[in-house]
Amino acid sequence: MRECIIAHYPDANIVSIPVADGGEGSVDCFLQAVGGTRETVIVKGPFMEDMDSYYGRIGDGEIVIVEMAACAGLPLVEHRMDPLNTTTYGVGQLIICAAERGAKKIIVGLGGSATNDGGCGAACAAGIRFYNAAGESFIPTGGTLKDIMRIDTSGRKGCGNLLGKAEIIAMCDIDNPMYGSTGAARIFGPQKGADSETVELLDNGVKHLAGVIERDFGMNLAEQPGTGAAGAMGAGMIAFFGAKLQMGIEVVLDTVHFDEELRDANMVLTGEGKIDTQSLRGKVVIGVARRAKAAGVPVVAVVGDIGDGIEAVYDEGVSCILSINRIAEDFSKARNHARNDMALTVDNFMRFCKQMRIF
Amino acid sequence: MRECIIAHYPDANIVSIPVADGGEGSVDCFLQAVGGTRETVIVKGPFMEDMDSYYGRIGDGEIVIVEMAACAGLPLVEHRMDPLNTTTYGVGQLIICAAERGAKKIIVGLGGSATNDGGCGAACAAGIRFYNAAGESFIPTGGTLKDIMRIDTSGRKGCGNLLGKAEIIAMCDIDNPMYGSTGAARIFGPQKGADSETVELLDNGVKHLAGVIERDFGMNLAEQPGTGAAGAMGAGMIAFFGAKLQMGIEVVLDTVHFDEELRDANMVLTGEGKIDTQSLRGKVVIGVARRAKAAGVPVVAVVGDIGDGIEAVYDEGVSCILSINRIAEDFSKARNHARNDMALTVDNFMRFCKQMRIF
Repeated sequence: MRECIIAHYPDANIVSIPVADGGEGSVDCFLQAVGGTRETVIVKGPFMEDMDSYYGRIGDGEIVIVEMAACAGLPLVEHRMDPLNTTTYGVGQLIICAAERGAKKIIVGLGGSATNDGGCGAACAAGIRFYNAAGESFIPTGGTLKDIMRIDTSGRKGCGNLLGKAEIIAMCDIDNPMYGSTGAARIFGPQKGADSETVELLDNGVKHLAGVIERDFGMNLAEQPGTGAAGAMGAGMIAFFGAKLQMGIEVVLDTVHFDEELRDANMVLTGEGKIDTQSLRGKVVIGVARRAKAAGVPVVAVVGDIGDGIEAVYDEGVSCILSINRIAEDFSKARNHARNDMALTVDNFMRFCKQMRIF
Repeated sequence: MRECIIAHYPDANIVSIPVADGGEGSVDCFLQAVGGTRETVIVKGPFMEDMDSYYGRIGDGEIVIVEMAACAGLPLVEHRMDPLNTTTYGVGQLIICAAERGAKKIIVGLGGSATNDGGCGAACAAGIRFYNAAGESFIPTGGTLKDIMRIDTSGRKGCGNLLGKAEIIAMCDIDNPMYGSTGAARIFGPQKGADSETVELLDNGVKHLAGVIERDFGMNLAEQPGTGAAGAMGAGMIAFFGAKLQMGIEVVLDTVHFDEELRDANMVLTGEGKIDTQSLRGKVVIGVARRAKAAGVPVVAVVGDIGDGIEAVYDEGVSCILSINRIAEDFSKARNHARNDMALTVDNFMRFCKQMRIF
């Protein structure tokens, strides 16, 4: 987009803001957007093996971005997906490490996870203890959530909003509840390798966890939108880390000071793979459009497909949607020249803007 | 397009100009564009059978539009395509009829033909005689062009530029020569039902005709662009009717006084099924763009597919190309919602124009 704009407006001041969705690559996105450093940490991987992981430190160094995919992500278990046994332990280690190294705000990207442990693994890394019926301490995973009889937070390490050391924001862009027909296991279990029987096990485990959290913490999280994110990590972040759940796009736009960037902007170009009714549920384009609308800046959405029922996006601030599809052909073919197609679309649009002297 | 524009600019003055390409529907296109009447005439069909045909009379009644598809068109022979034996006789009858009924200008649309007779059938209807080696008069068709030994124009009826009664314009949007590798038979024969052997026969026939025309009329038409149109009807129109060959789009734009319409226009929206390097060879979008550019009016091309190598169209006056493809799917699926897709594309674009206060 930048190249195509510059071709017609060589003097344009273009601010490119890569937008993270909380999944793999979110750390790099933030680093690109606002600058910062990537710090390497050795933590436990999905199967409790030691691995090199990382987080990003941005801004004045007091904000840390953790992406759970960096030590509990699907790409790490590509050929042995196992949501019954994988853990978020390493995610907890990353958070603790960041807090101990002085982070004042920790943003945890929930996305692309291989786990379904409700964040219990991460909680263990933070010093919380889970006990089974035999009174034994264990690290719960998706398959053993149902064994949790008691949760002991007395050993919780000094981090998290609850202890006042660092503010923790968990970012996700889904609004699923913990369990049930639209819960973590049923909707996302299959892509983590769960067959229907495993999905039932996982769903029951999360349901059990929700009951224990409600009983021991007095928190009714089951139906709260987003608690089902990342194998119910959303719920765990609230219960065990005192985190606030926020839509990813809002976290990103706040962090990159989007509202300030908008002040002198003539136009915002944004986009997504497919714009449709789903887009209205807090995805990137709408998040961007709402703020741009408030600032009186027009928004052009450059997208792959344009789905049905999109009228509402105009009300949210999108001025115009441009599909990059230039040939009527299947996505399996179109994907091979998507970059070129986007360039052509933006080039065309900029030609028009230029000719009409829009700016 | 009109509906989508009106939705955002209720006071817009929109001039819709359907553009004929010389093929089936060209008469109705002109009638819609500038008003007029459709007159029915009984003439000979592709196999010399009597049939109801028609032409259109437009403007002050002195301009007549003939489409050869109306009595020599492919749809008329759908299940018995036979370029060796079909005739343009009826086309000649339509022209003569129009001339006898007072037309001062006759526009003949060459397109969608089922014939390959070099316009000899039409010439016969106009009183020209063709003789074979035995000295017998006959009506040549694609398969018997090779038998023409002599052409006698002494009985030619009073029409055509040659006799000063009516100006005749033949409109086509291809630039193929009479014969050879890009000639009428090789390029268009197959879609008229010719197998490779028949293509050879037809090509040799047209070549022979070209030789006779050169010998008897002193006209070297073989290589002239467009003479290969409609089974070499392009050549016949010149040789037998004194017609001028013109690109269809230029004829249309002249006839509808497009340059006058442009004078107060803010924008021109046009389009075609696929814009590509072919478009540069005189097709609709470029024809429109050239005139709009001269008048300083921006042109937006709303198209199906955008092909490669289109950069030159911008130089010709196209400001912006919008593909209506909104989903990455095969044309076999996309075609089913093309109307809706075009509406969405234009709607989107108009929203942008409105928001940016372009007009």
